[in-house]
Amino acid sequence: MKPLAKPSFRAVEWVGNTDGHLLLLDQTRLPSDVVFLECRDVDTVWEAIKTLRVRGAPAIGIAGAYGLCLGLRSEDSMSEDQWFARLNAVADRMITSRPTAVNLAWAVRRVRDVALALRGGGSLEEIEAAMLAEARAIEDEDREMCRSIGRHGASLLANCDNVLTHCNAGGLATSEYGTALAVIFSAVEAGKRLHVWVDETRPLLQGSRLTAWELVQQGISATLICDSMAAQVMREGRVQAVVVGADRIAANGDTANKIGTYGLAQLAAAHGIPFYVAAPTSTFDLSLASGDAIPIEQRDAREITHVFGSPTAPAGVAVYNPAFDVTPARLIRAIVCERGVISPVTTDAIARCAGLRAK
Amino acid sequence: MKPLAKPSFRAVEWVGNTDGHLLLLDQTRLPSDVVFLECRDVDTVWEAIKTLRVRGAPAIGIAGAYGLCLGLRSEDSMSEDQWFARLNAVADRMITSRPTAVNLAWAVRRVRDVALALRGGGSLEEIEAAMLAEARAIEDEDREMCRSIGRHGASLLANCDNVLTHCNAGGLATSEYGTALAVIFSAVEAGKRLHVWVDETRPLLQGSRLTAWELVQQGISATLICDSMAAQVMREGRVQAVVVGADRIAANGDTANKIGTYGLAQLAAAHGIPFYVAAPTSTFDLSLASGDAIPIEQRDAREITHVFGSPTAPAGVAVYNPAFDVTPARLIRAIVCERGVISPVTTDAIARCAGLRAK
Repeated sequence: MKPLAKPSFRAVEWVGNTDGHLLLLDQTRLPSDVVFLECRDVDTVWEAIKTLRVRGAPAIGIAGAYGLCLGLRSEDSMSEDQWFARLNAVADRMITSRPTAVNLAWAVRRVRDVALALRGGGSLEEIEAAMLAEARAIEDEDREMCRSIGRHGASLLANCDNVLTHCNAGGLATSEYGTALAVIFSAVEAGKRLHVWVDETRPLLQGSRLTAWELVQQGISATLICDSMAAQVMREGRVQAVVVGADRIAANGDTANKIGTYGLAQLAAAHGIPFYVAAPTSTFDLSLASGDAIPIEQRDAREITHVFGSPTAPAGVAVYNPAFDVTPARLIRAIVCERGVISPVTTDAIARCAGLRAK
Repeated sequence: MKPLAKPSFRAVEWVGNTDGHLLLLDQTRLPSDVVFLECRDVDTVWEAIKTLRVRGAPAIGIAGAYGLCLGLRSEDSMSEDQWFARLNAVADRMITSRPTAVNLAWAVRRVRDVALALRGGGSLEEIEAAMLAEARAIEDEDREMCRSIGRHGASLLANCDNVLTHCNAGGLATSEYGTALAVIFSAVEAGKRLHVWVDETRPLLQGSRLTAWELVQQGISATLICDSMAAQVMREGRVQAVVVGADRIAANGDTANKIGTYGLAQLAAAHGIPFYVAAPTSTFDLSLASGDAIPIEQRDAREITHVFGSPTAPAGVAVYNPAFDVTPARLIRAIVCERGVISPVTTDAIARCAGLRAK
């Protein structure tokens, strides 16, 4: 009866060795269809990242790392010079599939740099094997990081808690476990019974399409609501904790995350419900003193004015569509990262945690 | 340059005299198409109410009143007994088009009772003329009530205010001006420049489809947002007032309105923004001591799990879809009704206002 704590799917999975291929779970087809895209060349991976078939910073990074490997299959007719010229060209092009994804550039360059460091020290086949090993390492490190976040965060949830989450900070966005959902998965694995309220997360419905799908897959009790219903559910006393992910955390703990997160934090405060952020330390941006310095990306009006291509708003109406909002640290009870639980959330506590070299 | 304060459309309009017909603005076609349904028989009106082509308690009542008139065209071949038998049959049937709409039954019976009172005292043609006059009176009274709400509420808004509203409490739901939107229309008419933030209002998007359309029609500056963005807009200091309608107001001022209203009231309080409810005194239900006694209707899960018939959530996920929530009186700065502004919102103040016989 106990639900699986380990996800039964992977967003990104390499099959085989250096002559293998990449499987990507096509997230644009969810929740209706579970379709895996078989990638045997770099262009297929490029297109999949570009069109959001794979999404979430860690998952994109891992896909890009494997994509670079796919683009560098040694060919008998290629000289070493030609091969290394191709390495740089493929790496540069891969990064253009999602130019603002810092994680993608970081992961692709990490795999490229392994090859560059080995130049002249081994055969192309050996270099290709080392690149694949590096991509696997990136994936493994992400998996272990998510597991650690989950383990640390699980202690914050009590048996029979109702947990509310927003957007998708789940396995689909990472190697396997996610961040906010890792906390839930780990608590369930530890034997706690939880129920999860899932905000649908307009405009792109990541909660409805992705988070609800993940939880149903895992057999975890979940109820879908519109974003505007969270306050009512809280008022009914049916939420004991809110757990969300993060896109960027300033030095003082102010947290940028999917639009709607800030409102949830205010509502949680009004109802005396603890509000938790789960994110790796790589999310900390200590160059920003506070959230005031975090730029808010504006997205396309059509995300709000159209659904499945059909208009749901009058032509010519103005639209405001911020991708993110910033939740001030004072509304965050704790930040859970792979190194532990930061609570209370202060500049000092974050600096201490970020300064740790390892666990 | 000053925008029209009077709506340039009517949701319900009678054209001509007793041999005239009814025009209904088909709200299921908005915002893409502005199509008027020409009703020349009672069945067309019945179908239009049933399928939500006309919606909003006052608008439904007015449409039903005129619908009854359409169903009682005198025919030479009909005896007076036959005519009155038909009157009762048509009235009973008209009410079944939306059985829970208290306003519909009230308006249809009011027109029927005029006919019953005149039985034997005039020709059928005279009775039909009296019925049409009564339907017109219902419409005129609603228009005057909306105008009064607007006049009283306009004083609450200052020049250059940004006003946030939720769902549709506009002209489309009433004879012409609406309730929450009447406040905005009247303030604009008085020469104030306003900007309106429109919550899209999931799941049925009445804000996006209807309120945004009304405001664009009126030339009033409006910006559409997802419901989850309201908190961010407030945090940016870009909201000076929130104005919403009401479905039911308990004796102590607790207010039931479209789901999402309660969360907005909490967010307004957190940001020090006044929160106003605009509704006629007919919305007061003094039999309920507080909002705890207001039942919350649950609606179909498909409103959340499907869009335009396509699934946006995994099969089998649980859904919670309350139609309304209840905002406690302590979060409401003022209730604006046709008799004036109730502020502070207390049981005594509401009783005094509801007890007034007339303005």
